[in-house]
Amino acid sequence: MTSVLGPDGAAAVSAYVDAHADDLIEKLSAWLRIPSVSSDAERTDDVRASADWLHAVLRETGFPVVETWETPGHPAIFASWPSNDPDAPTVLVYGHHDVQPTGDGTLWEAEPFEPTVVGDELKARGSADDKGQIMFHLTGLGALFDATGLTAPPVHLLMLVEGEEEMGSPNFRALLEEHRAELACDVVVVSDTGVYGRDVISTCTGMRGLVYAHVDVTGPTSELHSGLFGGAVPNPAAVLASLVAGLHDADGRVTLDGFYDRVVPIGDEERTLLAALPYDESVFLEQASSTATGGEAGYTTLERIGARPTAEVNGLWGGFIGDGQKTVVPTDAHAKISFRLVADQDPAEVEDAFRSYVEAAAPPGITAAVSFSGNVRPCLTPLGDPALGAVRAALAAGFGLGSADDVLITREGGSGPEADLADVLEAPVVFLGVGLPDDRIHAPNERVVIPMLLAGARAAAHLWPLLATALRPS
Amino acid sequence: MTSVLGPDGAAAVSAYVDAHADDLIEKLSAWLRIPSVSSDAERTDDVRASADWLHAVLRETGFPVVETWETPGHPAIFASWPSNDPDAPTVLVYGHHDVQPTGDGTLWEAEPFEPTVVGDELKARGSADDKGQIMFHLTGLGALFDATGLTAPPVHLLMLVEGEEEMGSPNFRALLEEHRAELACDVVVVSDTGVYGRDVISTCTGMRGLVYAHVDVTGPTSELHSGLFGGAVPNPAAVLASLVAGLHDADGRVTLDGFYDRVVPIGDEERTLLAALPYDESVFLEQASSTATGGEAGYTTLERIGARPTAEVNGLWGGFIGDGQKTVVPTDAHAKISFRLVADQDPAEVEDAFRSYVEAAAPPGITAAVSFSGNVRPCLTPLGDPALGAVRAALAAGFGLGSADDVLITREGGSGPEADLADVLEAPVVFLGVGLPDDRIHAPNERVVIPMLLAGARAAAHLWPLLATALRPS
Repeated sequence: MTSVLGPDGAAAVSAYVDAHADDLIEKLSAWLRIPSVSSDAERTDDVRASADWLHAVLRETGFPVVETWETPGHPAIFASWPSNDPDAPTVLVYGHHDVQPTGDGTLWEAEPFEPTVVGDELKARGSADDKGQIMFHLTGLGALFDATGLTAPPVHLLMLVEGEEEMGSPNFRALLEEHRAELACDVVVVSDTGVYGRDVISTCTGMRGLVYAHVDVTGPTSELHSGLFGGAVPNPAAVLASLVAGLHDADGRVTLDGFYDRVVPIGDEERTLLAALPYDESVFLEQASSTATGGEAGYTTLERIGARPTAEVNGLWGGFIGDGQKTVVPTDAHAKISFRLVADQDPAEVEDAFRSYVEAAAPPGITAAVSFSGNVRPCLTPLGDPALGAVRAALAAGFGLGSADDVLITREGGSGPEADLADVLEAPVVFLGVGLPDDRIHAPNERVVIPMLLAGARAAAHLWPLLATALRPS
Repeated sequence: MTSVLGPDGAAAVSAYVDAHADDLIEKLSAWLRIPSVSSDAERTDDVRASADWLHAVLRETGFPVVETWETPGHPAIFASWPSNDPDAPTVLVYGHHDVQPTGDGTLWEAEPFEPTVVGDELKARGSADDKGQIMFHLTGLGALFDATGLTAPPVHLLMLVEGEEEMGSPNFRALLEEHRAELACDVVVVSDTGVYGRDVISTCTGMRGLVYAHVDVTGPTSELHSGLFGGAVPNPAAVLASLVAGLHDADGRVTLDGFYDRVVPIGDEERTLLAALPYDESVFLEQASSTATGGEAGYTTLERIGARPTAEVNGLWGGFIGDGQKTVVPTDAHAKISFRLVADQDPAEVEDAFRSYVEAAAPPGITAAVSFSGNVRPCLTPLGDPALGAVRAALAAGFGLGSADDVLITREGGSGPEADLADVLEAPVVFLGVGLPDDRIHAPNERVVIPMLLAGARAAAHLWPLLATALRPS
């Protein structure tokens, strides 16, 4: 499959994107100034302002239908632009307009919500994850119209941009079910992922699921002098440490009962495909700002990230955490622990197994409890899906590669609501994303690489005619 | 040994103490209003103000020599009041004027540094530990003078009240060495401990030592998205948890190499003495605000607290510790871990063993380091020391008990600079303390029980003539 726009069309798309690059950066920067941190209750108004901003821009772009969809939490934006060809397939683009918390502000080189262009990078929270990846679609659509003279997309184009992805999309599945009719589509295009590397363009076939656990261990109700009581009462911080430490065995495998029972093993074909990616340990370590890899025995780094489930302690705290010394037995200790799941693990089963594990970890005198937020199902796209071929061809065109085969296949280690999209809408899910592994999403100093955004815009321009052809009933 | 003051003298002491109770509370409250938190650099001036306050009060009490002794940290106060009898023994009273941090201020029912009398309790940080226990000595001295007509103590009385005890007395040993000549004495009376219970008056024969460790585990230099990197790089919070969890084996024994090598086992005689104390598990659990005991297998609760060494995690933290969820691999994690030591463990050896343990705990990609603050040697007083008999008789008189045998023997689980006093001054150490196990020292809502303070004042009045007799060369 190659681009259906032809060489002149491709050149026109490129020229349009180049001419509108400044406009893209300017518009995106305006959006990035809105600190739409969905998990911070104090930012509720900002998340709504972000939705309102997108609503206005989609109208301005020409979408005849733009709607704000309320949820019990933050609002999503829906837009629709029907094709002039009634027989065209329907495509739903998915992204999100909320962003991660900034964490420790002192670690940022510039203000997280004051976008800064440095070289070919645009730095701000949300630049790569995910506002930049929504904005390139709008530039791409303009390029397609300019290159072809079309006044409507060649597919029935739907967009759904939610506001709770960074909270684990707690209301997303219900939103999909409520609007199932309006969202009916032939394929979902997710733009919230990345390529393997700046020179290794790829699309992924699966994303990991997520279970996010909040663990609370409580012991004595008053903080105790460790001289008067230490060694004679159970210490909740020690119990928490044992609970966290016991999650992995000596081979780095997760110890929860039944954790691996439903895991689809990596087949020989996929192991070969993943091994074909130009993995360079020194580059990975630089991106990971780490001096060594580690993890489950018997798997490569790429397999560990994309195709194997994990348990990760994201944070822990308890007792005296100030400067100096204080000799106490703490009253309580806490941890945030997340599990990344792969097909066909079931988040509800992992929650049950972890709940049992936590309850069993408490000795007499200690209470250990767990609550969960925002679980996400894992998803896996069939390798032979025609939409996957269209995405690879669009990426090849957008990045100026020779053919769709030059676009490699990966698995994504992160988690999103993709599985709910596939499940509720009964449509395959493919991925058009231009993030880079070192974009520092979820970390201080997030950035997006501007040439990647522009290539994304070109790929988006090519994708709609490719999908119109690939999915048209023969 | 019974009181040498006789019934009339004892009655006069009691009458004086009763008449001066309000004055004691009023003066102590003024001192407690000074927030002398030695481990908080912002309170440096307050620690000095506390020393100045005590200096003035000791002058006012009549001590002919009062000096402020500077250290590289906070100042100590020294006072001396020679006996009119040149052959009298010399006694050094030890206490401290610094206090613990308050911790979470919202957990206090009243302001920590605004003393409040509620019923028979005086509530404030430092009320029991240790300002109240210094103040009762001054009332006791006045009572002795009033009851006997003496104008100077019957022993050469020295006082040393340091300002860094709650930091682990980092400069105390050097101070003792510098002033060895002025501090030369026949016995040290420590007033910084407590009795077994309000109705079970006791003195202790030993205190535990302390090693306080600050553990820092570092991994990736940037906080990582746990989807993109989780499961493929080592997680410093997980390493910290394993390090803490690995400190104890299944029997609750500390796993450091050689940790128990120098521990003096509890002899049958002492086990019998400790077992004679009226231990009530339900009372202990209420004091501990815990629903169960726990600790090293094979030992009773009192043995675990007084006669066995421990490792206790006082606090730990790392990664995301806010509300909501954040899916990161942390860059670093930390713990405060304290070891309580018993005779004859050597703090320096325990530091070395723990340093080796921490270094061995770091897998590739992780750095684990430890620093130490304020180690304290354990100490143990010979059961047959004549000064111990004098203290028991003084407590019996102060609390109105029949005889010195009614004052029981305990071991104290806490740590202080007692071992340095014994070691540098080459004098036995005995303990005259009236704290209670549920005084919540080091915790929110510290209090001292006023009748305990008054009994301490009476005991102090009796102690000097008792020691003058017990220690006079025969």
